[in-house]
Amino acid sequence: MKSFRKELWFEIPGRRAFVNITPDVKVCLAESGIAEGLALINAMHITASVFINDDENGLHHDYEVWLEKLAPHAPTSQYRHNRTGEDNADAHLKRQVMGREVVVAVTEGKLDFGPWEQIFYGEFDGGRKKRVLIKIIGA
Amino acid sequence: MKSFRKELWFEIPGRRAFVNITPDVKVCLAESGIAEGLALINAMHITASVFINDDENGLHHDYEVWLEKLAPHAPTSQYRHNRTGEDNADAHLKRQVMGREVVVAVTEGKLDFGPWEQIFYGEFDGGRKKRVLIKIIGA
Amino acid sequence: MKSFRKELWFEIPGRRAFVNITPDVKVCLAESGIAEGLALINAMHITASVFINDDENGLHHDYEVWLEKLAPHAPTSQYRHNRTGEDNADAHLKRQVMGREVVVAVTEGKLDFGPWEQIFYGEFDGGRKKRVLIKIIGA
Repeated sequence: MKSFRKELWFEIPGRRAFVNITPDVKVCLAESGIAEGLALINAMHITASVFINDDENGLHHDYEVWLEKLAPHAPTSQYRHNRTGEDNADAHLKRQVMGREVVVAVTEGKLDFGPWEQIFYGEFDGGRKKRVLIKIIGA
Repeated sequence: MKSFRKELWFEIPGRRAFVNITPDVKVCLAESGIAEGLALINAMHITASVFINDDENGLHHDYEVWLEKLAPHAPTSQYRHNRTGEDNADAHLKRQVMGREVVVAVTEGKLDFGPWEQIFYGEFDGGRKKRVLIKIIGA
Repeated sequence: MKSFRKELWFEIPGRRAFVNITPDVKVCLAESGIAEGLALINAMHITASVFINDDENGLHHDYEVWLEKLAPHAPTSQYRHNRTGEDNADAHLKRQVMGREVVVAVTEGKLDFGPWEQIFYGEFDGGRKKRVLIKIIGA
């Protein structure tokens, strides 16, 4: 069994953003030399997500509006977590809706994807350095 | 390490439905000859889900009502994604709540499940052909 | 390829709780002797979750309040599932938001975690015995 590991680093200037990391994952997969297996891609931080969906700006705007409705940032005093001195409780909630990780099949050395699948890093509490982990196992 | 891959095809007549695919996954696992490992089952389309829950009609009705409340289909003009000519922005949102994929342990050649676990395909934008991927790795 | 399997048992006295199971998973990983691979940790019951987030009491309170807002327990008659004699339909909904499972990378014999990642069992319908499955594969 082969295994491969790499970290991607991000420093998002604003509070929230979605970044397409599919090209980075493809580079990792090629580097790994793994033809058949599973690739795990996960946020290493608990106020961020990795998810698979469409690379369409309008949809990303809809996600932003929708997540803010489901788990509003303000007033920050509504969350007990923010009494610790943080203002990011909403980011911990948004991340649960969008998910921590994806697992992708690797087949014949490629990400085994449907026609529109793209992998995104979802930042909900930016302005600091954060990481995504790519771990691929297989043969 | 062994690996196995198969696609399941769906064409759901209406917009939304839940389909129990556990029997199909069991057939794949038997075919794979894998005794110990992990099975990934994922929607290959970004307006559909694969998830594990109860095979109970009342609950499926409750999911339908609840998802429609969290991410309503209409008015379709509320979503910027729908300016592309689509009317399925809500399906991209619902799919994030229900999830893209499940990973199931394989033990002694069986899906290693609790008493009520069943695998479902969740369609949120039907009327077209769509696929689920089953990838199993192990020994 | 090596594989390892263990169940953790829970009997939560109240209806809902979050339990940090990271120490248990670390013990399993040491026992497995696996250095490189993937660890799957999943709830074996469909009214419970396994998720990764922060071990901070205020945040857990916020999750409790938020999930109750997204999928209220009462009135129980609002859910068709509860006509089966259950009163736990809300637990099936809450579990979808928080997720069934996590997949964690194993690197050099350790859980390959970011600085704050901790694994939790999320109970949404307690008062009965339930299980979490830990399955690790690798080399």
